[in-house]
Amino acid sequence: MLDLFDFIREIPDYPKPGILFRDITPMLANPDALAQAANAMAEPFLGKKIDIVAAAEARGFIFAAPIAMALGAGFVPIRKPGKLPFDLHSFAYELEYGTDELQIHVDGVKPGQRVLLVDDLLATGGTIEACCRLLEKCDAQIVGCSFLIHLAQLGGEDRLNPYTCHSVLTYDQDDLESELSPSGRV
Amino acid sequence: MLDLFDFIREIPDYPKPGILFRDITPMLANPDALAQAANAMAEPFLGKKIDIVAAAEARGFIFAAPIAMALGAGFVPIRKPGKLPFDLHSFAYELEYGTDELQIHVDGVKPGQRVLLVDDLLATGGTIEACCRLLEKCDAQIVGCSFLIHLAQLGGEDRLNPYTCHSVLTYDQDDLESELSPSGRV
Repeated sequence: MLDLFDFIREIPDYPKPGILFRDITPMLANPDALAQAANAMAEPFLGKKIDIVAAAEARGFIFAAPIAMALGAGFVPIRKPGKLPFDLHSFAYELEYGTDELQIHVDGVKPGQRVLLVDDLLATGGTIEACCRLLEKCDAQIVGCSFLIHLAQLGGEDRLNPYTCHSVLTYDQDDLESELSPSGRV
Repeated sequence: MLDLFDFIREIPDYPKPGILFRDITPMLANPDALAQAANAMAEPFLGKKIDIVAAAEARGFIFAAPIAMALGAGFVPIRKPGKLPFDLHSFAYELEYGTDELQIHVDGVKPGQRVLLVDDLLATGGTIEACCRLLEKCDAQIVGCSFLIHLAQLGGEDRLNPYTCHSVLTYDQDDLESELSPSGRV
């Protein structure tokens, strides 16, 4: 087993001064680390009868299909406005400055289907909370959320309460500025 | 084996009147169809010693990781400006109206590494051609390109010459209007 922390590159002052960005691209580029990460994200949900893995563009898409395949599930994309061609549910949510919006096909998840939400990073949880609201509009049963990285002091897990959250790599340090751009998803 | 054509939904007049959009989301949502599609995209490149699978956001990301894992390769993302945190190669390319730009980390692919480019759709080929130029800037060895869908009459394959192209589903009919938005990638 690899120590996946070794494959996370820290980029100071990105996307703005004072922010320490966790760059997962070295991990993605290593065949063994990529497979280990995807399998570790799926593992707690093996045997949980997941029907659908859902994820928001763009980085959420990276792990969604391998996790879906490991669980014998399908994949449903959640996208920014203007990207999905069929009838939609939409959910607008607040950012530090302005709002953002995510959408899902109305027939993407059928009522009662068991859904796992995945993303590369749980920071403040705004994007994933919006995804939960969209899945609730579909009457999906959200079994849990699985992340590669969890920045534990940013409160994202509380925000996703009561849904079960699983993370492969947790950063616990007093590094409150280590998060995605507060003005939106990079 | 499923007939994957059965899982492609045709959406008339999207994203604008006269365009017939091929919606792959029903295929993604079906566990067996998703796995069959990803494996069919990887299959011709088994044993070809692929080091890296590269793909452009957002829909290219969907199949990149499962194909990489099937081939024992890593994954390198190609993104729009403002998304990648490290040193970059950039390539700007013409659209019908205006230009677009894609970027790759300078260390994403090492010189001489064997790369497979993947995307869900080959239409006019502008995006994939831009990806080839970026990989050439990295001195990558492009082994080929693999697509789920090929709209054969739009000339994309010629545009990617001399690189080998493989597609799982080819649409050959006189359906010249069946393509992505000519003003950009949906």
